[in-house]
Amino acid sequence: MKLTAVIMAGGKGERFWPKSRANYPKQFLSLTADGETMIQKTVRRLKNLVAKQDIYIITNQEYLYLVKNQLPDLPKENIIAEPCPKNTAPCIGLASCMIQKKYQDAVMLVLPSDHLIHAEEIYLNTLKQAVAFAEKGENLITLGIMPTYPETGYGYIKYLHDSSQDGIYGVECFVEKPDLETAKNYLNSKKYLWNSGMFIWKASSILNNIKKYMPDLYTGLQPIANAYGTENFEKILIENFPDLPAESIDFGIMEKAENIYTIPSSFGWDDVGNWLALERINATDNQGNLFDGDIISVDTRNCTVCADNKTIALLGLDNLVIVDTPDALLICDKNSTQDIKKVLAEIRKQEKFNLL
Amino acid sequence: MKLTAVIMAGGKGERFWPKSRANYPKQFLSLTADGETMIQKTVRRLKNLVAKQDIYIITNQEYLYLVKNQLPDLPKENIIAEPCPKNTAPCIGLASCMIQKKYQDAVMLVLPSDHLIHAEEIYLNTLKQAVAFAEKGENLITLGIMPTYPETGYGYIKYLHDSSQDGIYGVECFVEKPDLETAKNYLNSKKYLWNSGMFIWKASSILNNIKKYMPDLYTGLQPIANAYGTENFEKILIENFPDLPAESIDFGIMEKAENIYTIPSSFGWDDVGNWLALERINATDNQGNLFDGDIISVDTRNCTVCADNKTIALLGLDNLVIVDTPDALLICDKNSTQDIKKVLAEIRKQEKFNLL
Repeated sequence: MKLTAVIMAGGKGERFWPKSRANYPKQFLSLTADGETMIQKTVRRLKNLVAKQDIYIITNQEYLYLVKNQLPDLPKENIIAEPCPKNTAPCIGLASCMIQKKYQDAVMLVLPSDHLIHAEEIYLNTLKQAVAFAEKGENLITLGIMPTYPETGYGYIKYLHDSSQDGIYGVECFVEKPDLETAKNYLNSKKYLWNSGMFIWKASSILNNIKKYMPDLYTGLQPIANAYGTENFEKILIENFPDLPAESIDFGIMEKAENIYTIPSSFGWDDVGNWLALERINATDNQGNLFDGDIISVDTRNCTVCADNKTIALLGLDNLVIVDTPDALLICDKNSTQDIKKVLAEIRKQEKFNLL
Repeated sequence: MKLTAVIMAGGKGERFWPKSRANYPKQFLSLTADGETMIQKTVRRLKNLVAKQDIYIITNQEYLYLVKNQLPDLPKENIIAEPCPKNTAPCIGLASCMIQKKYQDAVMLVLPSDHLIHAEEIYLNTLKQAVAFAEKGENLITLGIMPTYPETGYGYIKYLHDSSQDGIYGVECFVEKPDLETAKNYLNSKKYLWNSGMFIWKASSILNNIKKYMPDLYTGLQPIANAYGTENFEKILIENFPDLPAESIDFGIMEKAENIYTIPSSFGWDDVGNWLALERINATDNQGNLFDGDIISVDTRNCTVCADNKTIALLGLDNLVIVDTPDALLICDKNSTQDIKKVLAEIRKQEKFNLL
C-alpha cells in the first residue's frame, strides 16, 4: 500500500520567544548547532521512508512562504494552508480526505513538524513496524516514548504491557500532564509512555473513526474533499474550513476509539518544548553552559545563552536563559521558563505588538 | 585669600563597563535620572563657591575633548592634560605649582570629578568651614564622611574625636579598606570616617609638605612650574611629567605629614564606585528594581537594568545588574560587581580591544 506522510506545521511558537515570533514559530528555527531547522529535520528524516511527492505539509496561511522557502524541493501543491487554526482533528481530517481522494487509500504517517529525534535509524524502523501493523486492519497506532525521567510537561499513555503483538501493545488510556509525584510513579511503574503525538494509520481507518466519533467534522469535510484536485479547492477550503469543529485528535478520536495501539519506543525523542530543551539536545560545556555567539563568561554556570550581534559578558551567574535578538532580549531564570507566556501577555498589555 | 578648585578627572572607568570605556570613563557618564554627567555635577556644585575662572580640571590627554565638550563655559586654559597617568600626588603637585605661580598663594579645594553629593548646601557650608581653617595656617584638611553602613570598599580615617576645634578634628591615622567585621567595628566605634578623597589647603601648605616628604616630586615639578604661563608650558610638561614619581597624595603626604585635620561630614556623599551604587543614588520601585529604558518585568526583584535600543524582558530574576550598549551587554550578579575587572581581563585576553 502507498505510504504517505502528513506533517503538521501550524503551531505557534510562543515558548521560544524572542527567537520565535507569531510569524516565525519554532518549527522554522534551528535550535541545534547544525543550522538545520526543525521542519527541515522532520522532512529529511522522512525522505528515507516516503517519496517527496507523497509528503504533505499542513500549515497555516501565515507560514506558507516559510514552508516553501525552507522546503523548496517539496511539490508546491503538497503544501496546504489552513485558513485558520482549528487544532489537530480538522487538520488530520483534511489531510486524510485528500490522501483518500488521491490514492483511494494509503497509510499515513502523521507527525509534528517541530520535534527532535536522535536515533534516526531506530525511528525509521519503528515507523516501518507501525506501517505494517496499520496496513493489517483498522488500527490506529500512536508512538509512545519510554520515559527516561519524570517529565511533567507531557501527556502519558497507559499501555497494556502484557498484550504485546511483536512489540505493539494495546492502549488502556491516555492521561493528562501529571504532577511531579505522579510522573515519578509513572516512571517507576513502567506502564506509562510519553505521548509523542505521532500517529500511523490508513486514511480509511481514521476517516471511519472520524465518521463515527466526530460526525460533524466528517460532514463538514465532505465539500472540501470533493473539491480537492479541482481549481475550486482553495475557494471551497476557505469557505468551509472555518466552520469545522476545533478539537484535538487525541480528545476527539484517540481517547474514544477502539483498536488503539502503541509502540513503546526509544529513539531519543524530544519535543523541544521550551528553552530548557536546548541543554538536552546540545552538548553543554564542563560548567553546564550552552553558548551560541560571542560570549565572555566569568564565574558562570548552567546558563544557556544565544547572542545576536553583540558581545554578552556574564559575571557570577547561575541557571539563566539569555536570548538576544535585534529588537528584544530575554533574560529568564531556568525555573521560570514555563512562564514565558506571562511575558507575552505583558507585551500584549503594553500593545508592543511588533515584538510578538 | 583667593579660593580655587582643582578637579581631578583623569580616572579610568572600568567599574562601569560596558557603559564606561577606556575612552569614556565614569566622570563623563550620567548615572542619575537628570541626565547631568558626574563632572558636570561636580563643577555646577562648586560654582556657588568658586568663580569659574578659578576652577581647574586636571585630566589626561585622552579625555581633553570630553572635558571641553561637557564643560564648555570653563576657560580652556584651565583644563590641563597630564601626558600620562601618575596617580594623585603629581596631579595635585602640578596644580599647586600652577596656582602658586598665578595667585602667589590661594586656598585650593582638591576634589574628585566623579562623586555624588545629595545635600549640596551642607556640602558647601562644610567646604567654607574647611577653607577658613586652611587659611589660618599650614593645615591639610580632608573631608571625612560619617559612615552610615559598614562599607568595605572605602579607606577610613581614624580621627581624634575629643580634639574638636569648632567641628574640625585632628587625624590619628588613615586605614586601608577593612573586611566586613572590621568595618562593623569602625561603624559602631564612631571613631572612624570614610576617606572621601576631598582635600582643602593652601597651595603653599601642600607644596611645603611635598618639598619635605616627596622631595623628588618637588624637584621634578620645578621646571614645569617655571614654564607655566609661557608658550613653552605644554612642551615642558610633556617632557618632564612622565619622570615624576607615581604616588598617591594619601600615601605620599597625608599619612606622613603633621597638621592633618578632618571635618566629620554628613552631606549624602557617594563615590558611585560600581553598578551597585545606582540603587543608592536613584529611587527603586516597590520590587527593588531600578529600570532605565524599555523593560518588561515579570516576577523580577532587586534588578538594576539599563536598556539601550531594544526591549529587555526579565522573567523570574533576582539581584542582577543588566547593562546593554550597542556593542556589549553585561549581565552580572550583584554579589559579583566587584569582579568586573575579571571580565575586562578576559576581554584583553581575547584581544577584543574595541570593547574596552
